[in-house]
Amino acid sequence: MSNRPIVTLTTDFGINDHFVGTMKGVILNIAPQAEIVDICHSVQAFDVLDGALAVAQSYTYFPVGTIHVVVVDPGVGSARRPILMSTERHYFVAPDNGVLSLVYSREERIRVRHITGEHYFLHPVSSTFHARDLFAPVAGWLAKGVDSAKFGEEISDYVRLNAPKPKPADERTLRGVVLKVDRFGNLVTNFTPNDVPALFKPNPPAFKIVVGKTEITEMHSNYAEGTPNEIFAILGSMGYLEIASNRAAAAQLIGSGKGSEVTLLLEGVAAAVNGQ
Amino acid sequence: MSNRPIVTLTTDFGINDHFVGTMKGVILNIAPQAEIVDICHSVQAFDVLDGALAVAQSYTYFPVGTIHVVVVDPGVGSARRPILMSTERHYFVAPDNGVLSLVYSREERIRVRHITGEHYFLHPVSSTFHARDLFAPVAGWLAKGVDSAKFGEEISDYVRLNAPKPKPADERTLRGVVLKVDRFGNLVTNFTPNDVPALFKPNPPAFKIVVGKTEITEMHSNYAEGTPNEIFAILGSMGYLEIASNRAAAAQLIGSGKGSEVTLLLEGVAAAVNGQ
Amino acid sequence: MSNRPIVTLTTDFGINDHFVGTMKGVILNIAPQAEIVDICHSVQAFDVLDGALAVAQSYTYFPVGTIHVVVVDPGVGSARRPILMSTERHYFVAPDNGVLSLVYSREERIRVRHITGEHYFLHPVSSTFHARDLFAPVAGWLAKGVDSAKFGEEISDYVRLNAPKPKPADERTLRGVVLKVDRFGNLVTNFTPNDVPALFKPNPPAFKIVVGKTEITEMHSNYAEGTPNEIFAILGSMGYLEIASNRAAAAQLIGSGKGSEVTLLLEGVAAAVNGQ
Repeated sequence: MSNRPIVTLTTDFGINDHFVGTMKGVILNIAPQAEIVDICHSVQAFDVLDGALAVAQSYTYFPVGTIHVVVVDPGVGSARRPILMSTERHYFVAPDNGVLSLVYSREERIRVRHITGEHYFLHPVSSTFHARDLFAPVAGWLAKGVDSAKFGEEISDYVRLNAPKPKPADERTLRGVVLKVDRFGNLVTNFTPNDVPALFKPNPPAFKIVVGKTEITEMHSNYAEGTPNEIFAILGSMGYLEIASNRAAAAQLIGSGKGSEVTLLLEGVAAAVNGQ
Repeated sequence: MSNRPIVTLTTDFGINDHFVGTMKGVILNIAPQAEIVDICHSVQAFDVLDGALAVAQSYTYFPVGTIHVVVVDPGVGSARRPILMSTERHYFVAPDNGVLSLVYSREERIRVRHITGEHYFLHPVSSTFHARDLFAPVAGWLAKGVDSAKFGEEISDYVRLNAPKPKPADERTLRGVVLKVDRFGNLVTNFTPNDVPALFKPNPPAFKIVVGKTEITEMHSNYAEGTPNEIFAILGSMGYLEIASNRAAAAQLIGSGKGSEVTLLLEGVAAAVNGQ
Repeated sequence: MSNRPIVTLTTDFGINDHFVGTMKGVILNIAPQAEIVDICHSVQAFDVLDGALAVAQSYTYFPVGTIHVVVVDPGVGSARRPILMSTERHYFVAPDNGVLSLVYSREERIRVRHITGEHYFLHPVSSTFHARDLFAPVAGWLAKGVDSAKFGEEISDYVRLNAPKPKPADERTLRGVVLKVDRFGNLVTNFTPNDVPALFKPNPPAFKIVVGKTEITEMHSNYAEGTPNEIFAILGSMGYLEIASNRAAAAQLIGSGKGSEVTLLLEGVAAAVNGQ
């Protein structure tokens, strides 16, 4: 453990309450040298998959040894288990509800432990704020150098959620979904270069993407290429196909949002997906 | 003073302006080793009691020696005094308008000083942004190791606000209020286990809580116990009775919010409060 | 470079995505000892001048050696250049689109370099997220101690935007504009003591300010001097004339906002501006 361990926080706690500040106090009280970094606290409330997406986009950029605390926890205080997951580079502390699913699917060698070492918790442990009483202290002790094996036994039946994948509707049609709308109104879809390699080649074949009543037939490589009010497709920085507009919010122009259906029409596309 | 002093910030400055960033610059310019932690900047604008609540929920979790800067300051530039308060574990820098009232009532031994040491301020001192010109520099010099006695004389006539307490209406009725609505739509009331011990026992007697047109007769110990759309009572992590719903915003379901009246009906409840 | 270099971030990325957290990961991965401070992430999306204003209000308060990363970048991935600017006290990393214009006009001796040292970037460099792939890594390497000359050649044709200045309409009339509305609903105008010295003297002459249908004839020195619902003028902490109200949002009371016209009527005012 470095002498300045990094702890990141990803939660659905928002910024209107003391929740996040309190977590930081707990961590610093145990590990005064920890450096705490917010990834995002605006995960949609109770939305485990939205939290999974947030941490998956960001964690790989942090230094080796970083401890990621991920708390989207509608089951707090119930039987759901707290877990400590480790990859070869990072640690993750979270409820076992699938919020780490996208990390599981990116990493080859992982260990997941059921956190049972109650002497590491803040007592009395409330049944409504485990971020303060359990996840933050465990992150603090990890940052302080406690070996991960001390927190509990390894388990293999941890919860994995399936992120929605585009599905073939017929030979030339894939149906996907808008995963989220970002700050700039870009619609982040669940289409990736893995799903539709042809679409992301330098000279892609003719295609049509339909979102709501809008048809998109252009792919650009950066936002500034778009003409005013044009709605186009682009490979976003998260590795997903985005529907975007230059200096404008595509979500507003189209009238679509999180969960909206996205249809891709492209010759041979279903075969490509089936063949994976 | 540790070699990495912690300074927390609680303000009503929001996050849309440079205000908080500027405070951090001022502190780091004086005490480059300081570790600055945001507790909350979304205190309701001008709402001293809301700020009092935010810092009171969080400060105890921070390490010994932490300096808490609390700026909700509608009287900035007027005759209201700047104060430096210390407990046996923490320091507080704030305007003397009652924003530390809930800390005063939790702590046994406190000292309050009127900050008059102008050479610690940033000059020229504006009359609209004392957080930058006065509170942040004082926190910086404290973090740098300046003794608290140097900032001014002790006073005893500092401002205390009374947080609203539940009041008996008749023998079986208490009237309280919603102190705030949290991120998840939980209504945080001003009822505590001190006010109504019976309500929080393992097998509480029959009770009825009325908020708006909604009657609540169930107490749960965690949010996940609630059935869909059920509205129930719960002892929240802040130590207050909350009105909540599982994976849904009770405030929206009920149509109530901050300041709404909360009525508790329970045999013998008024006697219990009166007897305290 | 100090052993705890400070890096500030000012962006239009908001707080609902992982963007800012990812930037921090990149910086810390290169310079684990860096101290990262948020100035503001709520710059209006795509609004270069709003970003220029945010960083200009804050940067001077930070310690010597601070590295300011400023990313409001609607042209990301296009031909616009990335630049590294240095003053005698600070570094700035930003796109060359004018977002540093207000810094240029405050500083006497500056150097601007076109960042071309691609080996400092994160590869593959996306065409949609240079904050992650270019600006954050450059800030990281600067924090790590790489000499600024290594990032690219000096240029002199960098982009300068003109912030809107008040203009004389006739001998006694100046027309200005609301630059922004702050958290408290104060309207920050573009009138400064330089534009209208007489207005800010201890006993200013009679004046009239018109915003929307509201006429303002009073100048106060702090917010608390205002009577309930009074709308008055005040010299704000940013050095601009503000239209404000005591414990209330002037913007709401007046029904005006960013971009609204502000008219100042004062004997001889046009002459004063012309004479500068």
